[in-house]
Amino acid sequence: MATSAPPLSPPAVHLRPLTPLDFLERSAYVFPEKAAVVDGDVRRTYPELRDRVYRLATVLQAMGVRDGERVAVLAPNASAILEAHFAVPLAGGILCALNIRLTVGEIDYILEHCGASVLIYDADFDEFVKELKPRARCIRVGAPGEEYEKLLAAADPTKLHKAEPDEDATLSINYTSGTTGRPKGVMYTYRGAFVNALAEIFHAGMRPESVYLWTLPMFHCNGWIFPYAVTAAGATHVCLRKVDPKKIFELIETEKVTHLCGAPTVWISLANDPSARPFPHRIHITTAGAPPSPTIIKQMEALGAEMTHVYGLTETYGPITVCQWKSPQWDGSSDGERARLKSRQGVAMLTMDARDVRVVDSNLNDVPADGKTHGEIVMRGNNVMKGYYADPEATAKAFAGGWFHSGDVAVMQSDGYIEIVDRAKDVIISGGENISTIQVEKVLVSHEAVLECAVVAMPDPKWGEVPKAYVTLKPGRELTAEALIAFAREHLPGFKTPKAIEFGPLPKTSTGKIQKFILREREWAGREKRVN
Amino acid sequence: MATSAPPLSPPAVHLRPLTPLDFLERSAYVFPEKAAVVDGDVRRTYPELRDRVYRLATVLQAMGVRDGERVAVLAPNASAILEAHFAVPLAGGILCALNIRLTVGEIDYILEHCGASVLIYDADFDEFVKELKPRARCIRVGAPGEEYEKLLAAADPTKLHKAEPDEDATLSINYTSGTTGRPKGVMYTYRGAFVNALAEIFHAGMRPESVYLWTLPMFHCNGWIFPYAVTAAGATHVCLRKVDPKKIFELIETEKVTHLCGAPTVWISLANDPSARPFPHRIHITTAGAPPSPTIIKQMEALGAEMTHVYGLTETYGPITVCQWKSPQWDGSSDGERARLKSRQGVAMLTMDARDVRVVDSNLNDVPADGKTHGEIVMRGNNVMKGYYADPEATAKAFAGGWFHSGDVAVMQSDGYIEIVDRAKDVIISGGENISTIQVEKVLVSHEAVLECAVVAMPDPKWGEVPKAYVTLKPGRELTAEALIAFAREHLPGFKTPKAIEFGPLPKTSTGKIQKFILREREWAGREKRVN
Repeated sequence: MATSAPPLSPPAVHLRPLTPLDFLERSAYVFPEKAAVVDGDVRRTYPELRDRVYRLATVLQAMGVRDGERVAVLAPNASAILEAHFAVPLAGGILCALNIRLTVGEIDYILEHCGASVLIYDADFDEFVKELKPRARCIRVGAPGEEYEKLLAAADPTKLHKAEPDEDATLSINYTSGTTGRPKGVMYTYRGAFVNALAEIFHAGMRPESVYLWTLPMFHCNGWIFPYAVTAAGATHVCLRKVDPKKIFELIETEKVTHLCGAPTVWISLANDPSARPFPHRIHITTAGAPPSPTIIKQMEALGAEMTHVYGLTETYGPITVCQWKSPQWDGSSDGERARLKSRQGVAMLTMDARDVRVVDSNLNDVPADGKTHGEIVMRGNNVMKGYYADPEATAKAFAGGWFHSGDVAVMQSDGYIEIVDRAKDVIISGGENISTIQVEKVLVSHEAVLECAVVAMPDPKWGEVPKAYVTLKPGRELTAEALIAFAREHLPGFKTPKAIEFGPLPKTSTGKIQKFILREREWAGREKRVN
Repeated sequence: MATSAPPLSPPAVHLRPLTPLDFLERSAYVFPEKAAVVDGDVRRTYPELRDRVYRLATVLQAMGVRDGERVAVLAPNASAILEAHFAVPLAGGILCALNIRLTVGEIDYILEHCGASVLIYDADFDEFVKELKPRARCIRVGAPGEEYEKLLAAADPTKLHKAEPDEDATLSINYTSGTTGRPKGVMYTYRGAFVNALAEIFHAGMRPESVYLWTLPMFHCNGWIFPYAVTAAGATHVCLRKVDPKKIFELIETEKVTHLCGAPTVWISLANDPSARPFPHRIHITTAGAPPSPTIIKQMEALGAEMTHVYGLTETYGPITVCQWKSPQWDGSSDGERARLKSRQGVAMLTMDARDVRVVDSNLNDVPADGKTHGEIVMRGNNVMKGYYADPEATAKAFAGGWFHSGDVAVMQSDGYIEIVDRAKDVIISGGENISTIQVEKVLVSHEAVLECAVVAMPDPKWGEVPKAYVTLKPGRELTAEALIAFAREHLPGFKTPKAIEFGPLPKTSTGKIQKFILREREWAGREKRVN
């Protein structure tokens, strides 16, 4: 399948390297009067965004950035990080958007590993940056008149040296959360981002009239490529420094937001907020990170949202599969059935070969499409990373046999849709039997008092491991562990029923994913942990 | 700009050659129960379409087709030609879809030039094919039980040898109409068709629920790539053997058609047909070939259609620019203003660099964006042909200076939208002054009795050339040449006002384009014609 690209001798009139930078050029050309970015009180048109991008690229080149030099960004979802998504590659550099929830030690590690020569950081992180080892040259993004804005104002974009685009070059490096070791630097290419952006536009149904609110962090998988997809569509970016339900409901109304992305926890926080109220118009939500529960799908649909569930990893530019809704066949489904259908990970996205996402056994043979046999999800194609930066060993391991190994355990349903059973490292092995923590969690959240939960393995002298649940209740609700265990027992076999329940808030990543590894470590502290 | 593609060593997990064949694989996988093709009484699902494509590819390979062997198709818009769009490349061959309105001599020329070893033809062309020089092996498409269906039924698709895709390989050859010489074979690539299909989907707003009616011939620029675009979206193809307004209105209602493509003459025949009635739902029309007149835009919008005007040539996979509508800015425009805005050729499509479509002087410098200065439209990028088949001389000429030369004369409007003034060969030069025949035609069709018209140069002893108009009146309407000339004189300077008018039907290409060269030849018969 994957062959070498054709040998082409320049100049070829019919070949243009695929680059997401062209999307900005086109929207600045076609939509000169349109709002490209809304960031608080600031509104900028596409030509204004393009001008700032050119200025920032010029500033970066003056600092020596070109030819694949890494530029790190530590910033919330505001103008600067969006600008960096275009300016860093325009200068010829590689973007490393940093997870703003990491510790000083973690960021130090990443900055050293990627070797960034420039760090663009938001003034919110002044104290944080002081604690970092001095390494990169810094640009501080502050108020008008401060460093970043002064540099942009002083830049002469006619000095910019535009690099020859190479579509297989590295566009960005996104570090994994590193739950099972040191963070790894996932490399995206220009070609991958271009093709993925077009697929995202299609699946989200984005149009030039769309308005996209940044509820998903841009540092996360380059915001699932939406910085490029939204720009390609000629739609409007509405920045949001942090997920604040009250603010989100306001912006949806005032800015006429039509599209949002995020993990289910974002929607849980929205739907259960005191400020929750029906949207004044239809909204399209792309959700990933965990399967949306029947409850949250129902709640969000009631507010006026259409939910599309997608699935992927940092290694796949974010989403690589979509739970493609089938109209009219599924339109008449009951609420429960809709939720069941929508909670599946689905099928390869538009720009993929359908057979390039598979569920396989350890010999890379497809598991039967019986909805029962467990296998690992593997992928390949333009939606898969180029590799881990400066880590040929990890790359070779991840690409064993010519496929990217997701580490996610799934079944193949009879209709060809993939359904994740669990992360390989989350599966509980109790007396030799596998337990899908996702299955147990689905039962628990179906209890009307439960807001969200996470099930992890707890050590057990007899069974080795048994399920334990961490549960957050809805505001004002009460429930005993005994009552919830009894409820679970009605829907699950004995060995899958949680043996212990602990109530309280759940640890989460910056993107709203529940951090099971923290809970697991708590359970296994001082003991020999399973190796995954 | 246009650089060589990256040198990549297989197997590369992150690289899949871009091929429109993947769209069929995906839709057959994702939408097994959906109607892919409606062809008269026959309805086939996507897996059924895929099965027939695999069978046809197997049949072709058994006839020796692979490795770039050419396969010609002579057929109306029915199942076979759609199947050939996938089966020929799947076998490893190159598709040559023939214009079914050509003469025996023209088809003979093309078959000899492309060297097709197989000709698939519809039973409608039994007599026609008998007159062709025996050259290719023939497959006759007839009723069930006849040759084509028997071959498909007998084929064993497990025998198919799937070629390694190469995205820069030639997918198809489309012969130009050859109005100024011998037809030339325009080569499309897999990559070009893949990228263009994604742009078409976006601009037409196609979704999996869409239903596409084939009013545009599939032999014309591979149906503007819609065989691949409709399939990618997972939408339904509704076949139509010929443009029949009554039938079109029926199919729109019974099949719930949402999308159509074609030249303005198709819409003129629809809007003025006795069977014309409002569509029961919104329809999206992509129109090209000539700017739609204010009248026809108004008429079609009144029936319930949204019209998107696109522009391109055979050499650009059909459409390469789109008259991108600007909402909300233009939404409140008057009917006349809407029509003026929509009649422009516009801006580069989604997957293009905006600057890769230009209006230039003879030194390839941009003309000023003043809406007045004439220049030639030139393009480059993935939406431009690879070259003319077996014609390096014509290719070099068309690609002079690293740009494809369209031969279309245009101005650049101040908002960056291109507006065609005329085909270079259509411009009338009267006493040294250029006259845009399009400008004169716009005035004539604004007369309420005029259905359509074509203005060409007529020889004149004093001025060299003067404008003459060929005019078709609306049914039941009467108008004298004198009255129409007087009407034109009110809106045009004297030298641009037609000096003669002839009433009657206009000669048209199979795609509904008016054949001005026939009218011009009539005027210039026996005289020395201008060389263009």
